[in-house]
Amino acid sequence: MSVYQATASAPVNIACIKYWGKRDTKLILPTNSSLSVTLDQDHLRSTTTSRADPSFKTDRLWLNGKEEEIKDVGRLSTCIKEMKRLRREVEDKNPNEPKLSTYGVHIASKNNFPTAAGLASSASGFAALVSSLAALYKLPATPSELSLISRQGSGSACRSLFGGYVAWEMGSASDGSDSLAIEVAPQSHWPDIHALICVVSDDKKGTSSTSGMQRTVETSPLLQHRIKHVVPERMEAIKKAILARDFDSFARITMQDSNQFHAVCLDTDPPIFYMNDVSRTIIAIITEYNRVSVENGGKLKAAYTYDAGPNAVIYAPKENLKEIISLIIKYFPQADAFKDPFNLFGAQGVGSGAIVPGFNEAVAKQFPVGSVKNLIHTRVGDGPRVLPAEEALLASSGLPKDLA
Amino acid sequence: MSVYQATASAPVNIACIKYWGKRDTKLILPTNSSLSVTLDQDHLRSTTTSRADPSFKTDRLWLNGKEEEIKDVGRLSTCIKEMKRLRREVEDKNPNEPKLSTYGVHIASKNNFPTAAGLASSASGFAALVSSLAALYKLPATPSELSLISRQGSGSACRSLFGGYVAWEMGSASDGSDSLAIEVAPQSHWPDIHALICVVSDDKKGTSSTSGMQRTVETSPLLQHRIKHVVPERMEAIKKAILARDFDSFARITMQDSNQFHAVCLDTDPPIFYMNDVSRTIIAIITEYNRVSVENGGKLKAAYTYDAGPNAVIYAPKENLKEIISLIIKYFPQADAFKDPFNLFGAQGVGSGAIVPGFNEAVAKQFPVGSVKNLIHTRVGDGPRVLPAEEALLASSGLPKDLA
Repeated sequence: MSVYQATASAPVNIACIKYWGKRDTKLILPTNSSLSVTLDQDHLRSTTTSRADPSFKTDRLWLNGKEEEIKDVGRLSTCIKEMKRLRREVEDKNPNEPKLSTYGVHIASKNNFPTAAGLASSASGFAALVSSLAALYKLPATPSELSLISRQGSGSACRSLFGGYVAWEMGSASDGSDSLAIEVAPQSHWPDIHALICVVSDDKKGTSSTSGMQRTVETSPLLQHRIKHVVPERMEAIKKAILARDFDSFARITMQDSNQFHAVCLDTDPPIFYMNDVSRTIIAIITEYNRVSVENGGKLKAAYTYDAGPNAVIYAPKENLKEIISLIIKYFPQADAFKDPFNLFGAQGVGSGAIVPGFNEAVAKQFPVGSVKNLIHTRVGDGPRVLPAEEALLASSGLPKDLA
Repeated sequence: MSVYQATASAPVNIACIKYWGKRDTKLILPTNSSLSVTLDQDHLRSTTTSRADPSFKTDRLWLNGKEEEIKDVGRLSTCIKEMKRLRREVEDKNPNEPKLSTYGVHIASKNNFPTAAGLASSASGFAALVSSLAALYKLPATPSELSLISRQGSGSACRSLFGGYVAWEMGSASDGSDSLAIEVAPQSHWPDIHALICVVSDDKKGTSSTSGMQRTVETSPLLQHRIKHVVPERMEAIKKAILARDFDSFARITMQDSNQFHAVCLDTDPPIFYMNDVSRTIIAIITEYNRVSVENGGKLKAAYTYDAGPNAVIYAPKENLKEIISLIIKYFPQADAFKDPFNLFGAQGVGSGAIVPGFNEAVAKQFPVGSVKNLIHTRVGDGPRVLPAEEALLASSGLPKDLA
């Protein structure tokens, strides 16, 4: 008997032009276009195995070994239904194809980073789900076509269907058929962009992005101006910067847009705060680091960006990462030794950090150990990967190998 | 020989619609109108004595007993010159008047609140300066006419020329002749509004408002929308709320405008932060306090507002102050006993604070003692006062009594 099964992994992406606000909450159609950098799956990824079998009575899904309910009208169910619909088109065209669209499907998914890292796993998760089902169903769909479906799972998941530099074009069709991801440039175009994720402790539970963004749409007078007048210009400018490998412009726009996203959160009633004093201090450090460079006739050397939480992601050309990591560790001493995946510091390690020449140390005070819990050094990466059978997360029983 | 001397005091004001941005930095003409509540001089005030004497060779000024330089082209010098010009008009009309405008003037000023309190003293300071000179020179000028001059000392000082509820109308004339303060309603119209000033510790020196606001004008894409479309509507709405003594609307607009002011600061490049984690927590507490009231069918009971620093000012009807003070002290324990100028708590005192029924205690954690350094309870107050001779700050020598 044939086993119909496929495994795929998908990357995390971190936006430079932020998605905040839906014009259609059911179809997940955004109020503005957005743009992100796909991070390397060697460091951060979701992996999903899907299997179709005539003996499976219902669709089932396990996340990190724990079964999750697939609600009838939920986002998971929408994605699975849409993928089965595309499979049906394949079967209708070629009657020799097995009728996988009529079978139940078992799906096992896991993330290689802890939820506690504060990284949104829904983008990589839905991208991996859609990618594994596309492989299972042997769909001829392009990544942009698949992005239409992962978008309905989690908006920003559409951007994880590509590697490199990815735009989510908001589109204008009311059925969402033109609200999809496109590749602005592949990883290979500008592989030099690295990222340092600063995982920041937070005492308080933030507002969820799903409810937060709609409150902003309903109450922020400034959001409309951002949507209509600011983002369209920035989308064009940052695409140009990426194509020209112009880090100075890329960094300026990225920081401005992160700040404007948090500005419209603050303009929401009641206001939404995602950044805390640690986040603000990382901004002060990167601002000072850039100031030193610019005052010496150089260009911007790093760009911070913050999503709906206190964690900083710092983008920079690889050559600056050593200085940046040293600076961050100087102000935010680490409990554990820095994991140095690119071996920047050699056997000696980063130690207790260091200040770059000309840097005004007084821009911030040193924080207690644990204020930044973890530092993850990664870089721009590729798009979803179809993995060999030995990487499957489902056992021959059709249940997850790591069943909790 | 006659002594020509006068003493006046002037109040602090705290804006509900914020002034942020100048269209003319020399004349101090704002990019938008603003509106404030004048606070009671019984608690917070600047006091100034001015004396004119033919023996004074130059104009001199002492602030809290320390002589300050009066720069030729500075703001102080502009205000003194303008006041002498108005005096000259008086002398021209009535040749019997002594020629005070040709005499040097000695000015002594002090604040009854420490600079460390983080309260801008320039508003009350310039209002007291102009008021004492107006009394010395026996000017027929109205408070609005005097506000034209104090505005050139420090923009928000123009609003301290009136008690109660005061608008600074931005005007449109290029010479600034229509950019002045008007009384929206006197203190007596709505005396029930009280204010709790939470003096917040801050490790870092913030961006000065003078340089910060111009950086916002130059770099924030959102500021233009605020100026053109948001503030004009809010000015009308809050005036209406004040005239109707409608605290619910007053509070909503006040909080929204404070948040939008800080949003445009964050939209500035590089971003400007004035609020810290303590400020954010006070917002969370007031938001929850209002939520409980609204969920029980009531109205908003308090409004926070933040100027260019981390201090909160909480406006509320007097009847709510006991609950508010108890809440703040619960989360921000005080080193010293609360000074209770309105005797809300009687002999027992406020103790360690208390939560109101239905309040979700988990909206914030308790902070260490000293996070909120001081609490000042005051209320809406009257405008500048001319004080009797025995309150003079200058000795018969023409030098300050408290010369440092």
